[in-house]
Amino acid sequence: MTATTDTLASTSVDVLRWTIRQGEYDDRVRRVQTTLSDRGLDGLVLFHPIRMAYLSGFYHLSTERPMAIVVSAKQDGLGALVPWLEQEHIAKAAGVTNVRVYPEYPTGGTKHPLRHLVDLLEELHLTKPGTRLGFDSNGYLDINGYDGPTLADAVGADVTTVPARDLVDQMRQVKSPAELRLIEMSAVWGNLAHRLMQDRVALGRNARDISHEASTEASRAMIASLGPSYAPLTSAFSSLPCNVNFTAGANTAFPHGLGNAAGLRRGDVLVTYAGADIGGYQSELERTMIIGEPNDAFITHFTNMLQLQQAAFDALKVGRTLAEAETDVSTLYQDMGLGDLQRHHSGHGIGLEGHESPFIDKGDETVIQEGMVFSVEPGLYVPGLAGFRHSDTVVVTATGVTRLTVYPRDLENMTILL
Amino acid sequence: MTATTDTLASTSVDVLRWTIRQGEYDDRVRRVQTTLSDRGLDGLVLFHPIRMAYLSGFYHLSTERPMAIVVSAKQDGLGALVPWLEQEHIAKAAGVTNVRVYPEYPTGGTKHPLRHLVDLLEELHLTKPGTRLGFDSNGYLDINGYDGPTLADAVGADVTTVPARDLVDQMRQVKSPAELRLIEMSAVWGNLAHRLMQDRVALGRNARDISHEASTEASRAMIASLGPSYAPLTSAFSSLPCNVNFTAGANTAFPHGLGNAAGLRRGDVLVTYAGADIGGYQSELERTMIIGEPNDAFITHFTNMLQLQQAAFDALKVGRTLAEAETDVSTLYQDMGLGDLQRHHSGHGIGLEGHESPFIDKGDETVIQEGMVFSVEPGLYVPGLAGFRHSDTVVVTATGVTRLTVYPRDLENMTILL
Repeated sequence: MTATTDTLASTSVDVLRWTIRQGEYDDRVRRVQTTLSDRGLDGLVLFHPIRMAYLSGFYHLSTERPMAIVVSAKQDGLGALVPWLEQEHIAKAAGVTNVRVYPEYPTGGTKHPLRHLVDLLEELHLTKPGTRLGFDSNGYLDINGYDGPTLADAVGADVTTVPARDLVDQMRQVKSPAELRLIEMSAVWGNLAHRLMQDRVALGRNARDISHEASTEASRAMIASLGPSYAPLTSAFSSLPCNVNFTAGANTAFPHGLGNAAGLRRGDVLVTYAGADIGGYQSELERTMIIGEPNDAFITHFTNMLQLQQAAFDALKVGRTLAEAETDVSTLYQDMGLGDLQRHHSGHGIGLEGHESPFIDKGDETVIQEGMVFSVEPGLYVPGLAGFRHSDTVVVTATGVTRLTVYPRDLENMTILL
Repeated sequence: MTATTDTLASTSVDVLRWTIRQGEYDDRVRRVQTTLSDRGLDGLVLFHPIRMAYLSGFYHLSTERPMAIVVSAKQDGLGALVPWLEQEHIAKAAGVTNVRVYPEYPTGGTKHPLRHLVDLLEELHLTKPGTRLGFDSNGYLDINGYDGPTLADAVGADVTTVPARDLVDQMRQVKSPAELRLIEMSAVWGNLAHRLMQDRVALGRNARDISHEASTEASRAMIASLGPSYAPLTSAFSSLPCNVNFTAGANTAFPHGLGNAAGLRRGDVLVTYAGADIGGYQSELERTMIIGEPNDAFITHFTNMLQLQQAAFDALKVGRTLAEAETDVSTLYQDMGLGDLQRHHSGHGIGLEGHESPFIDKGDETVIQEGMVFSVEPGLYVPGLAGFRHSDTVVVTATGVTRLTVYPRDLENMTILL
């Protein structure tokens, strides 16, 4: 009927696609199978929608209706548990060979969905006595009023269940060239959304209004520019695939501050966020800005924040641990006498989720590798005054980091004279 | 500085507020304490952000950083576990008396957050041998790469941990007058968003573009109309507090179909959603519409869908079980020969979450009570053609249900002649 992704795919022309290709999903599954064997596991049950999507390309809206992907260490082809309402949708996931469909949650009149999962596991020969089964969560997620047995209780005592959330999450930490291309494109559209927002800042307008307008315009431009193969994946059920927002005034002193409906005033500090969903991948651009000429206190905090962010960029080197990198930044906070204005560590992994492992944290012993992508965002939070935080998305290279965010960071460009 | 909620609250004038008052939160906590005692539990640990908010009024963005609310059966005042970055934010929650703040996840250099939770439990006298502790999840949520011990492992063998997710969820099933007022207002703004969307449907425009524009305009109107005390709560971190969207064409045959970027054409079927966040509460308005004169197949399916929805309205009577109500509808599907076009049950609870328990499902034995709020939305899904689903938000009264959604449902009003 219309020019959808599917009809384009059926032509012989290789249309530019803003998604991960099936071959990469197949590779991911093979790597999971290898790791399962290395760990002495016969299979893996994934309940989290993003881990499911990472292996299958099946993106969906999580509700109270459980879904799961099952990987067998020895048997190729993924298993999937889905409710009726996803049965046509899962059929499009090329890597999924065994689908178990149940009517509804809590039961739709038959039995609890996790009992259907056990049927699927049996079909995949993963319920025999002595089977060792990894899981990301011991049962389905706590979402929208869902309740049910643990996976351990559902499969019974003959099967050993083993926590293995890290298995897929570790693979996700190092991005492939295809993933980096999508994250880079996400950063490009984040830049646009932020620019459109900054251009619209005006006295008396409220933050939400400006943000919605800029997000709508940026999303429209992005959809028009990327062509008919573009579809948002992780943000498909929220409204804006390219999104910018900000908090203003003393609210910015809360790192995850809630916005308010009051109009902007001269002297307001703005702390922003912008990003976009490209093939499910995210980026993060955050800036601290001020309306009108900054006073000395603002300039001091802003300059200190920039220095801390530069220290964090510099600290990220292949072969060090993230704990070592964060200790560099943390020591600088202390040396500058700013320890009491710190409210969080220097950053987090980013990819299919806006926050994902690993973390630039004194408790994360992960070794930094080429291809890891981080937000870099040490902040200063001055209660009653404002928050000060830039966040740039960077990729780790052989020699340091490369910024994917190319938005200005300096005081002059962050000052909005009205 | 600006006219925020807080400065208004400090005046002697009783400003209209679109939130739940502290007294109602206090009542909720007292009811939880009573139920804990009835179940022989000494305390309750809640990790889910919505259950936390339901008892404390503390709405927050869930990330990899664990948070929890603890209720003691005997000791008044809530306990809270929060990371540094929420320390100023939690201070505004009047019912929270014991706050344990940890630096960061995974550790920020100290110890795992769940170890800090154990410290909090100790402070509340909930770690003594023999203590019986309820929980909603056995450990923090699987979100943004978080990993950690179960609650059972964290507290050790001297404390018995008991699943008790249903405790708060059952309380949430019956809405108070204050909650109904917020849901009713949510439905009002959902109607507006939907009307603005319907007015903007035009050939060649894409669904996303129309939806963003209508959502932005409706949100702007809502914020302007509700006054300075209005702030979105559950939707605070998505971009649009009043939101409408739709899918078009054959995509509508997927109940949770992903939108696409193609332009609208004559003959397209639209399946819509509209709602708004008022004090954290949601409503749901969904409609099936068609662009241009409907053909016979459309009229038949549409008429059948209306008949099924009416049967579901009629089935909801105080004192019956939801399983009985759903069996009425399900029998009608069968009698009409439409069983193979059903993809989900007739509806779900709605309140602080867009979907919440109980469910209009053959497996839900919950007894229908006055003050319960449901979406009512039996659907027909015709693969390759379209989906047919209206969803209305209703409240159960002594004599039946009252629709909070006052948007037209009939074929004439759902036909967009272009």
